[in-house]
Amino acid sequence: MDLTNFADRLLAACDAKAPVCVGLDPVVERLPDALSGGGSPADAFESFCRQVVDAVAPHVAAVKPQWACFERLGPKGVAVCHRLVEYAKQQGLIVVSDAKRGDIGISSDHYAKALLAGDAGADALTVSPYLGSDALEPFVKVAADDGKGLFVLVRTSNPGSDDLQNLPLAGGGTVAQAVGAMVHTLGQGSGLVGELGYSSIGAVVGATKPDDLATMRQAMPRAIFLLPGVGAQGGDVASLSPCFDAKGRGGLITASRSVLYAFADDADSQQWATVVADAASQLADQVRAAIK
Amino acid sequence: MDLTNFADRLLAACDAKAPVCVGLDPVVERLPDALSGGGSPADAFESFCRQVVDAVAPHVAAVKPQWACFERLGPKGVAVCHRLVEYAKQQGLIVVSDAKRGDIGISSDHYAKALLAGDAGADALTVSPYLGSDALEPFVKVAADDGKGLFVLVRTSNPGSDDLQNLPLAGGGTVAQAVGAMVHTLGQGSGLVGELGYSSIGAVVGATKPDDLATMRQAMPRAIFLLPGVGAQGGDVASLSPCFDAKGRGGLITASRSVLYAFADDADSQQWATVVADAASQLADQVRAAIK
Repeated sequence: MDLTNFADRLLAACDAKAPVCVGLDPVVERLPDALSGGGSPADAFESFCRQVVDAVAPHVAAVKPQWACFERLGPKGVAVCHRLVEYAKQQGLIVVSDAKRGDIGISSDHYAKALLAGDAGADALTVSPYLGSDALEPFVKVAADDGKGLFVLVRTSNPGSDDLQNLPLAGGGTVAQAVGAMVHTLGQGSGLVGELGYSSIGAVVGATKPDDLATMRQAMPRAIFLLPGVGAQGGDVASLSPCFDAKGRGGLITASRSVLYAFADDADSQQWATVVADAASQLADQVRAAIK
Repeated sequence: MDLTNFADRLLAACDAKAPVCVGLDPVVERLPDALSGGGSPADAFESFCRQVVDAVAPHVAAVKPQWACFERLGPKGVAVCHRLVEYAKQQGLIVVSDAKRGDIGISSDHYAKALLAGDAGADALTVSPYLGSDALEPFVKVAADDGKGLFVLVRTSNPGSDDLQNLPLAGGGTVAQAVGAMVHTLGQGSGLVGELGYSSIGAVVGATKPDDLATMRQAMPRAIFLLPGVGAQGGDVASLSPCFDAKGRGGLITASRSVLYAFADDADSQQWATVVADAASQLADQVRAAIK
């Protein structure tokens, strides 16, 4: 298998562990008691997230730092997030930077260089399609050149995602389906489709929209679906099996708060990281059972 | 006039100077020779942009730092951009942080706190509508609470913006018009419409799409239009007059590279900042003449 291709690398990690991604969404108010005293919030985020990475690395394929949480702390938080990306990669995890960037081409190129390119960049980045495919192309180019991946927002997990994404088009289908078609086309580019048949250009498809999964899969037969919304947002693992092929490939189920704060009822526990590890392990078991 | 309202503050600045916004999009390769030797790129960006702010402040209402350029330099670049936001505000400019953020509600709230809220935040922020109105609400809340503004991407200036934004909907109109209707509704919220009749929730409408301006104005009668694309992207100031009302209000014309790098034919000039000031002043004159 060509492990310079992102899709192949991700699927190999999913096969070896489980197609699960743990979101790293730290907030000051929810840190374990042992980390919330002393030190700056940025230091506490770094310590917390490194321990979470260590705890989940044996069980799941990927982690997904939510850049908004780190940007909230200013440049120090941004520095922590960059270091976490590198640390999680060193621990053998696939890192999806959840930054939802998207701008006109020249600025998208800056974002791609900032967050995705080269050794310091994440393995993959979430990006927004509203500006059209030329605005995504700089990201696609870095993905192709550097063996990285993208997850384009197509059908998001939030309650209001219908406002725009579910509007019916005069030509048939919905806005989300049109974006899906764009993602499929971008994903056919040179060097993007791996040996396992999936493209390095994936799609964000909310786990809270199970009725749309079949349509989304039809629009994007080669895309790996990043499936957020399991756990705190109410998405159900069992309903996601249509995203997966007969070999159990094609989706990456993401849980953030339900794993990250699994210790919440016992925040003063010294064993909080063990509770997080157990939650990740249980979710991995549940996902493997569901996609069999 | 209620200067705690963003729309009123912006329009007062436009009346006093000109409804022009200069984009701060620094790239290492295009800095004046005097700044490109010695020091870190982040230091050079800071020195360059502070001098640009000083040069344009007498002539234009606003500046628009492009966060992608600064993020490209990592946490040091992010720190520079935060300091530039504060510096430009101190020089009496309205600051529009062009970061095009947008995420599910809880993460949008982090971005709003990071980039828009309070004394350290910009006066306004560009945001992406793809996730729907609930994803924009945390930004709207900060705008209402802190007297700040938003510019929601509606009809962007890049060549590929038709891919999605111009798709006709089964119910009539286009995707961009549906987003425009969403922006209009959000902009009616408590505390957002100022005494001059405009809302603090504005819209990004590309200056490269003059044929769409009347439709966009109809969809968003109270929105101030941020109009990028003049200059390097080919937009023409004269074609933008339909955005402005009889008092010459309602639009904010943005030029980035054509002002910022006006000295490009003479990059070794010691007077590069004077060239930038002259370009801003000329654009301001041109805009005032066009909207009369």
